[in-house]
Amino acid sequence: MSDPQWFSELRKGGFGLTIRKDKVLVDKQTKYQHMEIFENEGLGRVFILDGCVMLTEQDEYSYHEMLVHPALLAHPNPEKVLIIGGGDGGTLRETLKHPEVQEAILCEIDQDVIDASREFLPFTAVGLDHPKAKIFVGDGIQFLKDHEDSFDVIIVDSTDPVGFAEGLFGESFYRDVKASLREDGIFVQQTESPLFDKNVYHNIYKELGKVFKKHWSYGAVIPMYPSGYWTFGMASNDIDPWLHYEQERADSLEDLNYYTSQLQYSAFDMPNFAKMLLQDIK
Amino acid sequence: MSDPQWFSELRKGGFGLTIRKDKVLVDKQTKYQHMEIFENEGLGRVFILDGCVMLTEQDEYSYHEMLVHPALLAHPNPEKVLIIGGGDGGTLRETLKHPEVQEAILCEIDQDVIDASREFLPFTAVGLDHPKAKIFVGDGIQFLKDHEDSFDVIIVDSTDPVGFAEGLFGESFYRDVKASLREDGIFVQQTESPLFDKNVYHNIYKELGKVFKKHWSYGAVIPMYPSGYWTFGMASNDIDPWLHYEQERADSLEDLNYYTSQLQYSAFDMPNFAKMLLQDIK
Repeated sequence: MSDPQWFSELRKGGFGLTIRKDKVLVDKQTKYQHMEIFENEGLGRVFILDGCVMLTEQDEYSYHEMLVHPALLAHPNPEKVLIIGGGDGGTLRETLKHPEVQEAILCEIDQDVIDASREFLPFTAVGLDHPKAKIFVGDGIQFLKDHEDSFDVIIVDSTDPVGFAEGLFGESFYRDVKASLREDGIFVQQTESPLFDKNVYHNIYKELGKVFKKHWSYGAVIPMYPSGYWTFGMASNDIDPWLHYEQERADSLEDLNYYTSQLQYSAFDMPNFAKMLLQDIK
Repeated sequence: MSDPQWFSELRKGGFGLTIRKDKVLVDKQTKYQHMEIFENEGLGRVFILDGCVMLTEQDEYSYHEMLVHPALLAHPNPEKVLIIGGGDGGTLRETLKHPEVQEAILCEIDQDVIDASREFLPFTAVGLDHPKAKIFVGDGIQFLKDHEDSFDVIIVDSTDPVGFAEGLFGESFYRDVKASLREDGIFVQQTESPLFDKNVYHNIYKELGKVFKKHWSYGAVIPMYPSGYWTFGMASNDIDPWLHYEQERADSLEDLNYYTSQLQYSAFDMPNFAKMLLQDIK
């Protein structure tokens, strides 16, 4: 398994994903993390941070569509959106499919991620150069503190809750998020795999519940993430994901490979193993 | 990637799953296929046929619950059930959770699969020794021809449609299935990954549509199958999956790790990539 021509993302028990590196494009230590981009015959461009697959050209749509559309369609008029992380641009690309959005601010801590995405991941980086996008390079936590009562939707598109991204999960961060949301604001965040990261998954919702009146978990199939099943946490004080949902707005979105109107409801029906992990959380 | 201590199931493009073989229990060529069973620290027992993961102790419940329960709960009174394939016993185990079932016949072509499962996969093989189970070793196609108008539900729990299992997919086989079903009978079958086996997936439904008045595709997360997302095809002449559905029957099922009452509906809401593959099929 030490063959340098293969990337492997293994779990502790000795199993996981392996991808052949057909052509290495980037392999560098940035100020914050180790970044790799390589090409694979089957998956296209593959983007790795600190040994974890962030996206592949073949399946990135699943993650980006399902992170963005349920929350934006839950909000009656998402004019101003903040994305923390997401330097590859995919979350911006999906956010800016919504004509209601007037301004989408991306706050990414790592300039190198933005630069490498512009050079090697044009299919997501297209979002970075949209006229309604504003790119801010800096710390997301500080950005929230500097922008109270400012956003209709806040999206956290981060790496796993270890290392420098750990601050983007937990009660203290969620209080900052809540303070930066406008009154009817909605928050959404990737919340790991309920199969392989049971404790992390459980704890995120426990912390969300300390700050927001309402929160929900929903899932999507993302083949190149561990277990192939990934979850997202949505939270708000007032708005349910279905309260203001208008199918017409969903139907007007273009180039959807994953999201459908039905999934605005059924993605929230989690398999029992995931439901059980949250059953003790208010 | 030729390290003999690791099993790998790779796709043509050079990526896939890899699992460390911590202890090899079975490695033999049967009359029909190559069979391996080994132990992995994280996944428990792992059962391989012809280089493809059939099940792991950790996640086999997803496949077996989702193959069985939607169809059995769709039928108003599934007294007599036929399972073609499924020699490991997991499908029998789930089938026999339904008190309506009076007799469940398993028709498995490979005696070696049954024997090895009894010895090394007790968590699924428990189904083989249930008092309502009858085990028949032989060819499923011939078994259907010998039993017309006999079953309320027929379940095909087979390997992929290549080699000797190919005969379990396609118009001719589906005509035999239909003839063996009682009037209100329901058929269900695993139907591969709509991400990695697009043509196979499409063709199965095209063939089902030639024989059955109604058919549906639904999905489940199965981490150790290619893409982590697997699908199932249900077909009938008269009964919709929801027409006779009684939540009380579902709620009375025990030890469910995956299936929930909500999934009887929402598992049928497929991601757009899968819906699109079937849009031209009646």
